[in-house]
Amino acid sequence: MAQENDIELLDFWVSPFGQRVRIALAEKGVDYEYKEQDLMNKSEFLLKSNPVYKQIPVLLHGGKPICQSLIIVEYIDEVWSDKPPLLPAEPYARANARFWADFTDKKVYECGTKLWKLKGEEQAAAKKEFIEIFKFLEGELGDKTFFGGETFGFIDVALVPFVAWFYAYETCAKFSIEEVCPKIVAWGKRCMERESVSKTLSDPDKVYEFVLFLKKRFGVE
Amino acid sequence: MAQENDIELLDFWVSPFGQRVRIALAEKGVDYEYKEQDLMNKSEFLLKSNPVYKQIPVLLHGGKPICQSLIIVEYIDEVWSDKPPLLPAEPYARANARFWADFTDKKVYECGTKLWKLKGEEQAAAKKEFIEIFKFLEGELGDKTFFGGETFGFIDVALVPFVAWFYAYETCAKFSIEEVCPKIVAWGKRCMERESVSKTLSDPDKVYEFVLFLKKRFGVE
Repeated sequence: MAQENDIELLDFWVSPFGQRVRIALAEKGVDYEYKEQDLMNKSEFLLKSNPVYKQIPVLLHGGKPICQSLIIVEYIDEVWSDKPPLLPAEPYARANARFWADFTDKKVYECGTKLWKLKGEEQAAAKKEFIEIFKFLEGELGDKTFFGGETFGFIDVALVPFVAWFYAYETCAKFSIEEVCPKIVAWGKRCMERESVSKTLSDPDKVYEFVLFLKKRFGVE
Repeated sequence: MAQENDIELLDFWVSPFGQRVRIALAEKGVDYEYKEQDLMNKSEFLLKSNPVYKQIPVLLHGGKPICQSLIIVEYIDEVWSDKPPLLPAEPYARANARFWADFTDKKVYECGTKLWKLKGEEQAAAKKEFIEIFKFLEGELGDKTFFGGETFGFIDVALVPFVAWFYAYETCAKFSIEEVCPKIVAWGKRCMERESVSKTLSDPDKVYEFVLFLKKRFGVE
């Protein structure tokens, strides 16, 4: 294992994908150098570290880059295996955790973007889709404390950064997530009791401000 | 570990995603019941087994469903860990294998579909994108025997089913993959020397016939 002091994270403050990595690092108690990236003017270092997607987050461990947030979180879980695991031990439970984390990865951000980018009927369709996505997630959560049961784990890490976006989604698309998925909102509050989460997640007002900036940038009135 | 005789695979003969699972099961020497699915008229069993995506492949182990091909392949690798592993042991190599398998998952099929579905300038753009994707993959392969080095592994399993689609892609979009990515084509031939691959992959002529059927169905002349 390389020394903890050669760990760098290329990230962008409000990114839910970057925040997954920050939460995982905090859960494992890993010190690292945070390097905020200018996404409007990407650095040579970022482009060289992630030539395929040219995106944050990138974790550099001993100078070697790891890309794609869920892959980074699994890497962190495997390298710092002396700390409580994020993924369960049993293969079926691991497959289930990967399935829902991947589902979150594929669905939530994209659908959330539609909520602020679209209007009228298209926005209504996106809202319906968003509720469907979260009904699936709420069904998986059920009455458990965290997605994996009693302990905070992989699916929680994948999903929780989006909780800070709920206010922006709700304000832009005029609906209440708590009304349709109260268990998800309660779960989000439980996650926020963890320092790894509360210290990482953006202030919902700041996320909303950022969404307003994005709306302006993309010419959405 | 459940008994090998309660393993079922819901699949569709030409699916590269299903073929990944079949290759992984063959590599591990696992016996299973293959259940061809009618994708035009999906069975209640398939819908119940994969309510989120309603897609094949689904592996059922002791009646419990696992969905999403790469997640299934990792599951197989973890359950039958007494056989040679598909993923390497070292965390960085594992992250790298997951990265390229995920890249294949996100890019190859979708871009390949554009090659037969689109025409004119749009098809030319898809061809350019396809070549870019395979240049990245060829760069990762380099002069190695397989993507992971000397042994057949996770990235190989993820990518090799598409080799059977090359003929259809080339014929529809009028180009030669061998001309732009000779190392990938040579790698495909090496993979075909493995029984797990040669017994699983579809005949390229049959894939092309299937693509012609799809073109008709989607009204592509």
